[in-house]
Amino acid sequence: MNPSQKTGLRVKRSVLDRRLLIFPTKGNAVEKVLDNHQEEIFFSEEEKQALYKTVFNRRDVRGQFKADPIPDDVLSRVLYAAHHAPSVGFMQPWNFIVVRSDEVKKKVHTAFNKAHDEAAEMFESEKSEVYRKLKLEGILESPVNICITCDRSRTGPVVIGRTAIKTMDLYSSVCAVQNFWLAARAEGLGVGWVSIVKQQELRAALGIPKDIIPIAYLCVGYVSHFYKEPELKTAGWLDRMPLEDLVYFDQWENPSTAEKEPLIAKIIEDKDFSRSC
Amino acid sequence: MNPSQKTGLRVKRSVLDRRLLIFPTKGNAVEKVLDNHQEEIFFSEEEKQALYKTVFNRRDVRGQFKADPIPDDVLSRVLYAAHHAPSVGFMQPWNFIVVRSDEVKKKVHTAFNKAHDEAAEMFESEKSEVYRKLKLEGILESPVNICITCDRSRTGPVVIGRTAIKTMDLYSSVCAVQNFWLAARAEGLGVGWVSIVKQQELRAALGIPKDIIPIAYLCVGYVSHFYKEPELKTAGWLDRMPLEDLVYFDQWENPSTAEKEPLIAKIIEDKDFSRSC
Repeated sequence: MNPSQKTGLRVKRSVLDRRLLIFPTKGNAVEKVLDNHQEEIFFSEEEKQALYKTVFNRRDVRGQFKADPIPDDVLSRVLYAAHHAPSVGFMQPWNFIVVRSDEVKKKVHTAFNKAHDEAAEMFESEKSEVYRKLKLEGILESPVNICITCDRSRTGPVVIGRTAIKTMDLYSSVCAVQNFWLAARAEGLGVGWVSIVKQQELRAALGIPKDIIPIAYLCVGYVSHFYKEPELKTAGWLDRMPLEDLVYFDQWENPSTAEKEPLIAKIIEDKDFSRSC
Repeated sequence: MNPSQKTGLRVKRSVLDRRLLIFPTKGNAVEKVLDNHQEEIFFSEEEKQALYKTVFNRRDVRGQFKADPIPDDVLSRVLYAAHHAPSVGFMQPWNFIVVRSDEVKKKVHTAFNKAHDEAAEMFESEKSEVYRKLKLEGILESPVNICITCDRSRTGPVVIGRTAIKTMDLYSSVCAVQNFWLAARAEGLGVGWVSIVKQQELRAALGIPKDIIPIAYLCVGYVSHFYKEPELKTAGWLDRMPLEDLVYFDQWENPSTAEKEPLIAKIIEDKDFSRSC
């Protein structure tokens, strides 16, 4: 039974008024309103748990890739997850360049090495030494690399929701990256985001025109194992911050309010939540 | 049984070599290596399905908010999901400003109205009329607003992975937004991203200093219903693009290769995948 059958003509006036605004000149507005109502979709405790399990077990993978090919049905599903990310004004500014050519991968790898050497010089001597020894990419080992881009001129110059904040389209493509990453994790695929590469070199390697922004270059593949914790945490580079220190109320830096907040008490109580999933 | 008990001393040399690089001067490297191995975590078909169900049923909610309060345990979990987003160099650049004050919300709402009026002028006459009638925010109706920010100077001036692409820290905060959004959907909470507001006015309303970037202003709350499809799609503003048109191989715009690609055939075959979840 679809929602219109269930609801019949007794549609709540408030809902109708709101939706009708969108179709001010169309005669069949009522029908369209009803069609877009979703049957109530609930998430069971197990389903919620599965979402959190994916979120908490996602890792930035650099060194555990296996050469096993990724079946097309798996990659298709993960790409659909990316394609269903939110996008400003529904502009869907992303493209997905699937890289399997060794020649192209090698070009990107060379660009990485160059940017990596330059980066090492930026750290102070002790940190620079540790930095040089970190494994930060799996470009050649992973069977598939995927570049997710942003076409800023897609759907024209004026975009709903991008008029005040011009970077919203870039953010949309980032949401596609995160959807991709989570779906990949649930499928047992590791993903590593390679950001130590200059955009103009990535463009040259992949033939990307100047007006397209490469947002993320991802290494994708099955892995021998996932790590329990982010590698930079285990390496002692940085620790995870306590969430309660990052939450403010009504105004930036409002700890006086925060101290008395039941939400803060709950966050502290839940500190091991990520480990329970 | 933890992984080190299971593996004993017979650790694969390749794995050890790789991990040891990170602790070149520490005696207890082997132990640390083993500690960070994750017990193999698989996702059942049901768990994968739950992830896709969340991704495909997430909506940008503007008009269906109910005033019901959000329990602290739910908000705590959703914030933990956001806090476990990937971040460049593990810098975790985000903060979360939880807005419940009517006074603050009203200030943001006023800023929205101003930016919205300005935006309407940017569309051509016919589109402008439709634009003005769209419901694009739920600032006052939703019980909680949350601003997710990016502190670009967190962890110091040089950040692993941000040396070549300076916007990586902004992207990290966007990943936190997307994690928040998905966890909220699984919890039955609607989220709407309000981007039609100028950053300096958002800063003024929330007391955010100049060096902190407001990334997303989110309206959060339970809803009377979710829509089946994005509202801009139903309104006829734009349609969802076919995924197969957005996928290239090895180089930008490589349709000649794409036509022969089994992955493209699979993507076309899966066109109703999002509706099956």
